[in-house]
Amino acid sequence: MIDRKSKGSHAERELVRMLWKAGWAAIRVAGSGVQRFPSPDVLAGNGVRRIAVECKASGELKKYLSKEQIGQLRSFAKAFGAEPWLGIRFDNDQWYFLALEDLQETPAGYVVSQALAKDKGLILTEVLGEFIYKA
Amino acid sequence: MIDRKSKGSHAERELVRMLWKAGWAAIRVAGSGVQRFPSPDVLAGNGVRRIAVECKASGELKKYLSKEQIGQLRSFAKAFGAEPWLGIRFDNDQWYFLALEDLQETPAGYVVSQALAKDKGLILTEVLGEFIYKA
Repeated sequence: MIDRKSKGSHAERELVRMLWKAGWAAIRVAGSGVQRFPSPDVLAGNGVRRIAVECKASGELKKYLSKEQIGQLRSFAKAFGAEPWLGIRFDNDQWYFLALEDLQETPAGYVVSQALAKDKGLILTEVLGEFIYKA
Repeated sequence: MIDRKSKGSHAERELVRMLWKAGWAAIRVAGSGVQRFPSPDVLAGNGVRRIAVECKASGELKKYLSKEQIGQLRSFAKAFGAEPWLGIRFDNDQWYFLALEDLQETPAGYVVSQALAKDKGLILTEVLGEFIYKA
């Protein structure tokens, strides 16, 4: 059993390795979520496209996200010039990537269930492939 | 007196604040220099351009850089799709930004003196301005 913060960092490092393996340059952002400026958890580019990813790892079947988290991801991505993605990794499953308009709204923010991730999410090769992002 | 690592982090945070103030989205990279993948210290974008900055803060009149540090900056920037810059901040002076071809070569790598920085370096407003980067 590892704590939530380690679980998150571990998942981010895994994603960074997967991105490099796929030929994308990727980094983890220092102090994301605790800084005074908006930032994603992972930022990657391939010379043509850039993706800004808010990463979540969950042992539960649902992950809740605040309006602020998603708003900050959106504003960072717009200012930087990157596509905003929510990357989610449920235990014993692969990574799924959701466009922000596919998150399910709640009164307090958003929720992503494993079922929603499997239904609406893309897997990494799809995100990095010929997919054209529509803003 | 603060140690070298704190001095470096402090300078990076200062640069990130300056970039946001200038309307660029900027982040510090987690674990840069200790990771297995190349990475800059600071990465920023304005929706059109991206800059990857290796940051140095120095109390001396010269700063030495290894071939590997500069090589990693160059390869990250190329793979990501960003302009590589060496950002240097001597005590009691402003930031200067040097294109990699303006660094002075030594047998072991590169050196940047305060005089070279003032002579060849751009200040931040010049880097972020209408300057067109030639690869």
